[in-house]
Amino acid sequence: MPIVVTSVRRVAPSIARELGAFGVATVHEAQGRKGLLGAALRPVYRPILASGSAVTCEVAPGDNWMIHVAVEQCQPGDVLVVTPTSPCTDGFFGDLLATSLQARGVQGLVIDAGVRDIATLTEMKFPVWSSAVCAQGTVKETLANVNTPIVCAGACINPGDLIVADDDGVVVVKREEVDAVLDKAKARAANEEEKRQQFARGELGLDVYNMRQRLAEKGLRYVDSDDDA
Amino acid sequence: MPIVVTSVRRVAPSIARELGAFGVATVHEAQGRKGLLGAALRPVYRPILASGSAVTCEVAPGDNWMIHVAVEQCQPGDVLVVTPTSPCTDGFFGDLLATSLQARGVQGLVIDAGVRDIATLTEMKFPVWSSAVCAQGTVKETLANVNTPIVCAGACINPGDLIVADDDGVVVVKREEVDAVLDKAKARAANEEEKRQQFARGELGLDVYNMRQRLAEKGLRYVDSDDDA
Amino acid sequence: MPIVVTSVRRVAPSIARELGAFGVATVHEAQGRKGLLGAALRPVYRPILASGSAVTCEVAPGDNWMIHVAVEQCQPGDVLVVTPTSPCTDGFFGDLLATSLQARGVQGLVIDAGVRDIATLTEMKFPVWSSAVCAQGTVKETLANVNTPIVCAGACINPGDLIVADDDGVVVVKREEVDAVLDKAKARAANEEEKRQQFARGELGLDVYNMRQRLAEKGLRYVDSDDDA
Amino acid sequence: MPIVVTSVRRVAPSIARELGAFGVATVHEAQGRKGLLGAALRPVYRPILASGSAVTCEVAPGDNWMIHVAVEQCQPGDVLVVTPTSPCTDGFFGDLLATSLQARGVQGLVIDAGVRDIATLTEMKFPVWSSAVCAQGTVKETLANVNTPIVCAGACINPGDLIVADDDGVVVVKREEVDAVLDKAKARAANEEEKRQQFARGELGLDVYNMRQRLAEKGLRYVDSDDDA
Amino acid sequence: MPIVVTSVRRVAPSIARELGAFGVATVHEAQGRKGLLGAALRPVYRPILASGSAVTCEVAPGDNWMIHVAVEQCQPGDVLVVTPTSPCTDGFFGDLLATSLQARGVQGLVIDAGVRDIATLTEMKFPVWSSAVCAQGTVKETLANVNTPIVCAGACINPGDLIVADDDGVVVVKREEVDAVLDKAKARAANEEEKRQQFARGELGLDVYNMRQRLAEKGLRYVDSDDDA
Amino acid sequence: MPIVVTSVRRVAPSIARELGAFGVATVHEAQGRKGLLGAALRPVYRPILASGSAVTCEVAPGDNWMIHVAVEQCQPGDVLVVTPTSPCTDGFFGDLLATSLQARGVQGLVIDAGVRDIATLTEMKFPVWSSAVCAQGTVKETLANVNTPIVCAGACINPGDLIVADDDGVVVVKREEVDAVLDKAKARAANEEEKRQQFARGELGLDVYNMRQRLAEKGLRYVDSDDDA
Repeated sequence: MPIVVTSVRRVAPSIARELGAFGVATVHEAQGRKGLLGAALRPVYRPILASGSAVTCEVAPGDNWMIHVAVEQCQPGDVLVVTPTSPCTDGFFGDLLATSLQARGVQGLVIDAGVRDIATLTEMKFPVWSSAVCAQGTVKETLANVNTPIVCAGACINPGDLIVADDDGVVVVKREEVDAVLDKAKARAANEEEKRQQFARGELGLDVYNMRQRLAEKGLRYVDSDDDA
Repeated sequence: MPIVVTSVRRVAPSIARELGAFGVATVHEAQGRKGLLGAALRPVYRPILASGSAVTCEVAPGDNWMIHVAVEQCQPGDVLVVTPTSPCTDGFFGDLLATSLQARGVQGLVIDAGVRDIATLTEMKFPVWSSAVCAQGTVKETLANVNTPIVCAGACINPGDLIVADDDGVVVVKREEVDAVLDKAKARAANEEEKRQQFARGELGLDVYNMRQRLAEKGLRYVDSDDDA
Repeated sequence: MPIVVTSVRRVAPSIARELGAFGVATVHEAQGRKGLLGAALRPVYRPILASGSAVTCEVAPGDNWMIHVAVEQCQPGDVLVVTPTSPCTDGFFGDLLATSLQARGVQGLVIDAGVRDIATLTEMKFPVWSSAVCAQGTVKETLANVNTPIVCAGACINPGDLIVADDDGVVVVKREEVDAVLDKAKARAANEEEKRQQFARGELGLDVYNMRQRLAEKGLRYVDSDDDA
Repeated sequence: MPIVVTSVRRVAPSIARELGAFGVATVHEAQGRKGLLGAALRPVYRPILASGSAVTCEVAPGDNWMIHVAVEQCQPGDVLVVTPTSPCTDGFFGDLLATSLQARGVQGLVIDAGVRDIATLTEMKFPVWSSAVCAQGTVKETLANVNTPIVCAGACINPGDLIVADDDGVVVVKREEVDAVLDKAKARAANEEEKRQQFARGELGLDVYNMRQRLAEKGLRYVDSDDDA
Repeated sequence: MPIVVTSVRRVAPSIARELGAFGVATVHEAQGRKGLLGAALRPVYRPILASGSAVTCEVAPGDNWMIHVAVEQCQPGDVLVVTPTSPCTDGFFGDLLATSLQARGVQGLVIDAGVRDIATLTEMKFPVWSSAVCAQGTVKETLANVNTPIVCAGACINPGDLIVADDDGVVVVKREEVDAVLDKAKARAANEEEKRQQFARGELGLDVYNMRQRLAEKGLRYVDSDDDA
Repeated sequence: MPIVVTSVRRVAPSIARELGAFGVATVHEAQGRKGLLGAALRPVYRPILASGSAVTCEVAPGDNWMIHVAVEQCQPGDVLVVTPTSPCTDGFFGDLLATSLQARGVQGLVIDAGVRDIATLTEMKFPVWSSAVCAQGTVKETLANVNTPIVCAGACINPGDLIVADDDGVVVVKREEVDAVLDKAKARAANEEEKRQQFARGELGLDVYNMRQRLAEKGLRYVDSDDDA
């Protein structure tokens, strides 16, 4: 039988904010290129940013009942993550639910399904990532779990894990790895800034990353024209 | 043989405008969650809005000839709805046809195929919903019907039916049901506004919609941790 | 073994700019409706425009090593065109590589794969067309060719061919056909401007293009209602 | 509120069988290249054939309740046609429902959604066309209409219309047009048989259909090599 | 850094066989409609069946190196489950690897990517489920994990979990739930057999499942014709 | 203006047969992992095999006129390769054209579009690879090129190039590289046979390919359980 887990250990909002500021690509790299949700999840407007602890929510296809249940479990700083138990593009979420989440201090919504009222969501500046935009209404008939481990867009998400989302998409960081990832993200960002300046001055990645010898060893040849090959 | 039906009963533009102002999601709900066109239809720019009586137009794949025929059938306030007789992403429509439609007072275009010149369409603020953006040119060789019933993006559309389209997508309302749908949309919008204020104050959908008892009857259990389940 | 061709004949940047100004749809029509890249290639922001000689680059799936090699082959005014050797949505390109290309005067990137850091690409106004947005990182292990003929999004592209890209998508013009296409594009644009004015005055395509007789010959019938058919 | 229409005018089974024997492609051509359902509908096994009057059935996504309602409306010789009210790949239908339909003399199932137990369906030789194969179970909570006009895979289907389905896919013929289409199908098949013998003897379509002059008039040129062009 | 976990607790092959015999749909239902892998996974031939403990394997896109590592971890009765770290359709697996797995007594392969040599796989009767068929070769450059928890086609799979796969697709049963699921599958199958006989005799699901009253309570109406509605 | 090139240098049918017997995967590998057509091309029946010189043919979307033109250019042993000038799933080819091609000794058809009459094609054993099965009929209005270089399913194909196709898909070998590829395919097949026997005896790829040291150097670790990692 479906359950709602009411007690979830979270990432501190200040840490969530700090890690979120690095953006999805840096966080994804910092944690060893894992945790990315599928590229079908796109933001409803741009630029966009959210970072917070996951409240997880399953929904039956065409049925948004459990989102109402999940809203009550959300605390300030959370990100609500919704996954259907089978693929569905219906509009599970609109401006009323966004108003409710915003009133509770929720940072955003990630849903591997459809949303609607996106003009209003954009005006409200309530951050939403979804795999579809669709006005199709849903029913309220079937139970599912809230705050249990889920798979959303191909990634495992446990309640309380950190969600970081921006224009590039959505990444999840396991709660227990957040501190380590934050350290690595800082180091990576510092290194990237240095690289950015080198590139801006016209230096080449081939030299900055010292690639020329390894390319030659692998057999890359430079020729004047295709006929020389 | 293909025909062009020249006499179409329409929805009054003032009614079209009034119903259109409620937006796609509300109109779709107000008429009993039917009439939505498929989510593959996306607007060329946002925010966007159109509402008017449908002039329907079939086109052969890769052939936009009949759109020129359909333009003549359009009256001020209409929305032109184009469907290919088999799936096609070619660019059937661009800025010249948009200029022609705009000159005739047409409210917008809905096409389950491709369009081009979207930078200009955006500048002109001519509303277009399409299932593709593609510059591929088309020929003018094959006849098809204008102002006969069509299926566009999975929805049946009769000439003269009301088309409402916004950032969320496109919905069709049967001409003979427009008045009833308008009444229901008004009621729904009033009710939604009240709900919005409740949610903004922090009330929960669980209470606003009185869901707790029914959830319990269905067997939903609240547990402190996953291990309790 | 993979090669890098270092000597590529290019289209003069002034010609590239002149032809590019006509936009993708006009260039595509002017060269006989060929050369369009697939509609899956979408710009990272809008409005957008780039036009320049192609530097071509193959990459292995999940491996962006050769982009670093290709950057060195880019000259001011070029457009870098990247194609994976098998379909892949990973984020092969981000803001560091964009900084490097921008420093070299490159006009833009076309890639039939994923890119990341799109918020920064948008701020930098570095034009990018891609078939995916995805933060997934890539490795640097496998060689491939630079500046050899490639197929990108269904179109053959030779190094030095002209790439024109805008909100509508991307088109390639063979280097040796650029002059002829430029002449035709000028003629077409002049003709279109005249047509635009006719349409803006309310004239119909049926008359402007003299279509009525041919429609009748093909058998098109105008009827008052569907029952007459 | 949803309804079940109990009184449907049907095509006589003997006529259905006779027209069905011509196959989908011939029936589609005979009725003027209309009525084809989308190519996403594929048969569960091959070779396969069904032809009969449509019983139409809507289902909510993830909910197969109304199929049970529709079974009772099926008569010997019918084909059950099921469409979800929004896209869904769940397994709405399996071997138990097939047993029930087969017991009632139903000719087959067409469903723009998923089915399961396809090994057993194949053993039973119960013809099924679906847009997905998926074991995902469904609930029984939401009402929808039976024997009202529907859109299935892009085609309008009225209860009692004739469905013809084979290895190529599925086509619908309006009940009131069945006799005319049968006549045309007979004529077309006779003509095709003659053409088949001509082709088998090595005659060319260019001559059989007398195409050479029209090709030349359109400007087709035969050249010895590409350089001559 | 990537790891290979060498010690995995498995389901006994006799239990795997016993549960597998019920097929995917029954197992999926018996465990509460969870655990199904996505419908994009299709068998290479039909009819087909496999059931065994999962050996899990990640691969980089376009790189099948880790499959060779995983083969050594496979024991008789296992099913190898491979997932790419980002979407890829390349042919990661062919007849040589199948020969190797078959020699080790492996029951089958599940891979959310491409395979090749399917004519030989079919002749060998080595069961394979994949999301693509593609001859594209892969490299051996990048490490990834073997026998760690993975997401494959949207389902979480732990090493040693039970995989059941047939014509309908693939389902995973958590190792610790196998005994309970087996009991429920037996009960369900017995119940289904009884139902099958009722349906074969012409009884209706409406009566067998006692649905009529609940349908009426929900408001379903039977009308003679659409006009009555 | 469109042209038909009448003089094409071909691969000798005996060579085509000899290389074709190695199958798509081996030929693809033998020529350095290039030349594969996209995985969307699937055979109409299985097992299947064809190998011969390409006659290339463009078609407008929804228009199969040029296939009739191309038939005349086909010689015994050829494979006809058809690509639409923009994506289209219509049924461009059916049993009559297959009869015509078979009468001329053509080895098969490769088409990046739809075909129909597949039950008959299967009975005739006329090999066809297509990206869709669809009964939708086509017109005969628009010219295109025959025997000019084309892109089909992402691969460049010149008239006279060798096409090899089997259950795995389709690969093209440049005419001038056929001899070299044949030599490499023979060597590869001999080597694979030896490997197959090693694998059948239970030897591991890790040892057969001598991978253990390089895996260790890259950092792969074997651990007893996930907790050790």
